[in-house]
Amino acid sequence: MEFRIARGEVFLRVIAILLLVLTAFLVVFDTQTKVVFLTIEKKVTYKDVDVLKILLYVSSSAAGYNMLQLCKYSCSSKGSYEMCMVWISLLLDQIAVYLTFATNTALFEAAIFAFTGSEAFQWLKVCNKFTRFCEQIAGAILCCYVASILMAMISIISAYKVFRMYSPKRFLRLKGK
Amino acid sequence: MEFRIARGEVFLRVIAILLLVLTAFLVVFDTQTKVVFLTIEKKVTYKDVDVLKILLYVSSSAAGYNMLQLCKYSCSSKGSYEMCMVWISLLLDQIAVYLTFATNTALFEAAIFAFTGSEAFQWLKVCNKFTRFCEQIAGAILCCYVASILMAMISIISAYKVFRMYSPKRFLRLKGK
Repeated sequence: MEFRIARGEVFLRVIAILLLVLTAFLVVFDTQTKVVFLTIEKKVTYKDVDVLKILLYVSSSAAGYNMLQLCKYSCSSKGSYEMCMVWISLLLDQIAVYLTFATNTALFEAAIFAFTGSEAFQWLKVCNKFTRFCEQIAGAILCCYVASILMAMISIISAYKVFRMYSPKRFLRLKGK
Repeated sequence: MEFRIARGEVFLRVIAILLLVLTAFLVVFDTQTKVVFLTIEKKVTYKDVDVLKILLYVSSSAAGYNMLQLCKYSCSSKGSYEMCMVWISLLLDQIAVYLTFATNTALFEAAIFAFTGSEAFQWLKVCNKFTRFCEQIAGAILCCYVASILMAMISIISAYKVFRMYSPKRFLRLKGK
């Protein structure tokens, strides 16, 4: 039965890694050049927007972290060391999912401003000029949200793996071995 | 011992509610009027910025939800009904913390744009005009982040309450009663 959870977790992690890597690729290879005025060209890349750079770092780190977690399956551990490992997994999984989700939502907010502009702040729309650039970023945001949901499910599995070890009667007491 | 977890959870929820309510108040009562040009005055409130409105709704809902969770302690439940309740609590806690954290991070991103402007998008700084308004929003963001961290801790406690009921050996099998 242990096998069934492990298989589910590996499956979720692999899909999450693929989506995170896809997000990173969509961000890195997103570039558009447009004639702004007569012959003056303007080129936009992810480097022009801070939050895109941050999303790139966060999604690559999250993909790397999930990759490490997959490697963990090859070396099995037992006893108090195992208990320590599942706790660390739970905490790192939580940090990874919150970071990814938050960075992606920050980018989503920036994208909304770029798409609609802001009357109150007197900010102009950007996406009507750089439409293709924006569309690719929208794809990246979508991928990253799906990856975040999968990672949230993984962190629930991690919590299950930690807390089922504890007694249902006594506070933070491990079950008799 | 059950009492100790319950006490910790109630304490965390009460602090989280206070911080969420404080966030909502900081957002609602944040207003600044400034002379923009000669005698033309401009007044900014939370209604001018969509993400502030959304944060207001989310933080009030999260405070209300945590209040309901506190009420739950007055009526105790047993058996399969209890198991159903802890699962629902876990899922709602997760949704509440992700929503609050994400909305707050979206506001944080908007605040960064308002504070620094954006050269790439040709957006002007706003916070140098409406400094006091921005400072109060910064306070709201800080409160909401602390509340989010507390709610993340609450959701870990919820996960503990659910998963310690399960057998450490068999997959999703409840411990013998």
